[in-house]
Amino acid sequence: MAVTRLGRNPMYQQIADTLREQIASGSLPPDTKLPTEGELRAEYGVSRETVRRALGLLLNEGLIVSARPQGHFVRRRQPMIFRPQAEFRERPHTPEMDAFMTEFSEEGREPRQEIEVAIVEPPADIAARLRLDAGELVAVRKRIRYLDGEPFNINDSFFPLRVVRDSEIMRPESITRGANTVLSELGHQQVRALDELHVRMPTPDESHRLDLGPGTPVACHIATGYTSAGSPVRVAVSILPGDRHVVSYERIRDEDGDA
Amino acid sequence: MAVTRLGRNPMYQQIADTLREQIASGSLPPDTKLPTEGELRAEYGVSRETVRRALGLLLNEGLIVSARPQGHFVRRRQPMIFRPQAEFRERPHTPEMDAFMTEFSEEGREPRQEIEVAIVEPPADIAARLRLDAGELVAVRKRIRYLDGEPFNINDSFFPLRVVRDSEIMRPESITRGANTVLSELGHQQVRALDELHVRMPTPDESHRLDLGPGTPVACHIATGYTSAGSPVRVAVSILPGDRHVVSYERIRDEDGDA
Repeated sequence: MAVTRLGRNPMYQQIADTLREQIASGSLPPDTKLPTEGELRAEYGVSRETVRRALGLLLNEGLIVSARPQGHFVRRRQPMIFRPQAEFRERPHTPEMDAFMTEFSEEGREPRQEIEVAIVEPPADIAARLRLDAGELVAVRKRIRYLDGEPFNINDSFFPLRVVRDSEIMRPESITRGANTVLSELGHQQVRALDELHVRMPTPDESHRLDLGPGTPVACHIATGYTSAGSPVRVAVSILPGDRHVVSYERIRDEDGDA
Repeated sequence: MAVTRLGRNPMYQQIADTLREQIASGSLPPDTKLPTEGELRAEYGVSRETVRRALGLLLNEGLIVSARPQGHFVRRRQPMIFRPQAEFRERPHTPEMDAFMTEFSEEGREPRQEIEVAIVEPPADIAARLRLDAGELVAVRKRIRYLDGEPFNINDSFFPLRVVRDSEIMRPESITRGANTVLSELGHQQVRALDELHVRMPTPDESHRLDLGPGTPVACHIATGYTSAGSPVRVAVSILPGDRHVVSYERIRDEDGDA
């Protein structure tokens, strides 16, 4: 598979382009071992440096992983569905979401979570979303969720301390009936939420906690929940590595039909 | 501001950590010029190489931009709201989304779009979502949207050719009443949609078309629209650079109250 030198792109980009196409088309499926550096040098008649730059590009795009000393492999993406609507709608309302959830079922994968609870001064963006008074403290439930022993995502939920003080939200344990049910029992039922999705590179701390490889961006999903009176009572911040998640929503045309 | 060498992290990471904190806290606000390499060398007593590695880290995290020969600047993020629910719900239903849209209003920014229409063999993932027969062709409307002359996002909408042949969807012009209204007129009204958000690094082609800097991941938003009979009639693929968008949804607790 010779690559012409006539293209306007440098050689290492052309090699990366070829490999990228083979990955996209499935002719190099997930978990496939790439040719070795020596094999690529021979195939394209280029220097070790050129091969390394080509592989470096694909590593930074998150398409391959390096597993020394074995070599490079096509990255497997086995995403988990992150479905924010589950909060207010446990069962989906459309047959399409139902089918989609079945397709990406996590059946057989072993979930686990680590929970930590703390009382902290809120970060500025959390204080703004919760419309806290100056000096007001928040309770935060910090969770790391694992699937089959691998860290999958981080979920930190912030509550105004005055609302949840003395409730079981303050205990570092799973709440089987859900923190939202506890909020309802405390007289602060959430009836609406605003979701924001920000896409960015991870911080070094997130990379470390989630064991992220190079070229792995994250979605930062921020859900702010409101009571019927319009008071924000919860901000849930989830850090979702791009290689492990697909965020999904179902939408239904309103009956009043504005389109 | 001396940085201790006692930390477990190498010096370049400690310098990057300090700058990152200053950016996060706002003490280095957007568009601020960073100290020069020479100033950073003097401040921390380190080599040019160490300073460059620190800045390289922040560039790859998308926190700063390099504008030679002037130097490095804190990146300004001025996101545009991408609100998929607008498709079936022009006006938001919650006061919170209303306020959020006002906050991020694009008032005064000049929008423009380039449109191209083509008849193509569908990529495999589009064919699967549209449940096409083997060999069936699709019409694709490819749009690049600009704000104030800058490319903001890519939006490619795919339709089964048998559905839209001979309609104005085939003309490379804006459709004031919307492609969805045309679909309705053709007897294929969409009543439901499934949205998927995938987060990844851009392809070289996307980087080029959207003029993306290093450390800029994208959200790939795929919306599949269904008729009341459950037939998929449209797949809209949007490529949303993380530095220019916030994707947002409003959620309302269902009246049947399953939580």
